[in-house]
Amino acid sequence: MPRSSDGRERLIEAGVELFSQRPYGSIGVAELCARAGVNKGSFYYFFPSKEALALAVIDRHWSWQKGVWTGILDGPGTMLERLRGLFDATAQMQVDALTGTGWVAGCLFGNLALEVSSQNEPVRLRLQEIFDEQIEMISARLAAAVESGDVQPLADGVDGAAKAIVAQLEGLVLFAKVFNDPSQLDALWRNSLALLGLTAPAAA
Amino acid sequence: MPRSSDGRERLIEAGVELFSQRPYGSIGVAELCARAGVNKGSFYYFFPSKEALALAVIDRHWSWQKGVWTGILDGPGTMLERLRGLFDATAQMQVDALTGTGWVAGCLFGNLALEVSSQNEPVRLRLQEIFDEQIEMISARLAAAVESGDVQPLADGVDGAAKAIVAQLEGLVLFAKVFNDPSQLDALWRNSLALLGLTAPAAA
Repeated sequence: MPRSSDGRERLIEAGVELFSQRPYGSIGVAELCARAGVNKGSFYYFFPSKEALALAVIDRHWSWQKGVWTGILDGPGTMLERLRGLFDATAQMQVDALTGTGWVAGCLFGNLALEVSSQNEPVRLRLQEIFDEQIEMISARLAAAVESGDVQPLADGVDGAAKAIVAQLEGLVLFAKVFNDPSQLDALWRNSLALLGLTAPAAA
Repeated sequence: MPRSSDGRERLIEAGVELFSQRPYGSIGVAELCARAGVNKGSFYYFFPSKEALALAVIDRHWSWQKGVWTGILDGPGTMLERLRGLFDATAQMQVDALTGTGWVAGCLFGNLALEVSSQNEPVRLRLQEIFDEQIEMISARLAAAVESGDVQPLADGVDGAAKAIVAQLEGLVLFAKVFNDPSQLDALWRNSLALLGLTAPAAA
């Protein structure tokens, strides 16, 4: 059987699908091959290990997600409107997952981070880079918003605020997964405004 | 061999240790038995399944952690000082784990939440209760702090603020785990103040 690059592609797609739905440790090479419709020999022709496929899956998913983020963050509207659009899109993905599979998928990177960080060094290091990129993507837009006067200068700097917002996103996605309820993300916008110093407690 | 309740206790202790360090899916009954020094027959005498042990481990860990939280949150100082004390203690636990094992352990509940929520309904439902209890513990103290004037009335209410703070905690613990660096938690206090609409601790 010819080993076309199509088999590699199908394995990556199967990995994105399975690793997004179930624990990394619960998915073996045999199941990945069955889902992709390739035999085990072909798997090892394309990838030396499940970990190697996982790294390709992470890169594929980030490449896709980064495109979505960039499209929204560089789209129309004020920086705050675009940030809100990004959060709405994130919540909608969890709604779609719940509708399609019965389960809130959560964040593939967050899931892998808590499951395998202390077991799999290449995955952990790649996830570091991705979280740093996410923070940098938001930080750069916050800097532009401060520059344009949309946002006041931030006490903790734009990098600190961006990291706080991504941490809030990951924490609320965790709740969405535990409660299997995407509406846990409803507070993300309000909380992000507070982290940007843009809301004050209600008057007594 | 007599099956004393000591064997049950040792299995729970082995579970707390192993499930805190490695993915749930990577730890089998045989390893738990070896660590606890009990045989497999004894395991199934005490627990019908690994899941049943996991639930006992979760309850044990939460019973311990709730005691730590209560001791700090009802201890001396203003509510804000006590909240800060809780965060310092949380960061210190990650420092201790790093020193002892070479790895930031993260939060047992957060780890299980992202690994097994969509696979294990009893565990997911128990984790819901625990996160709700954590939020309620902080919410009750925030309500007292608003009452006493330490904190201004919160736009999103004390429950919303408490949930935002626990989400921030889980998000930064995730970063601490991915970066294997407890100092990721250094921003927790500052970010929590922002989520409370404060930029500096209220005067005592």
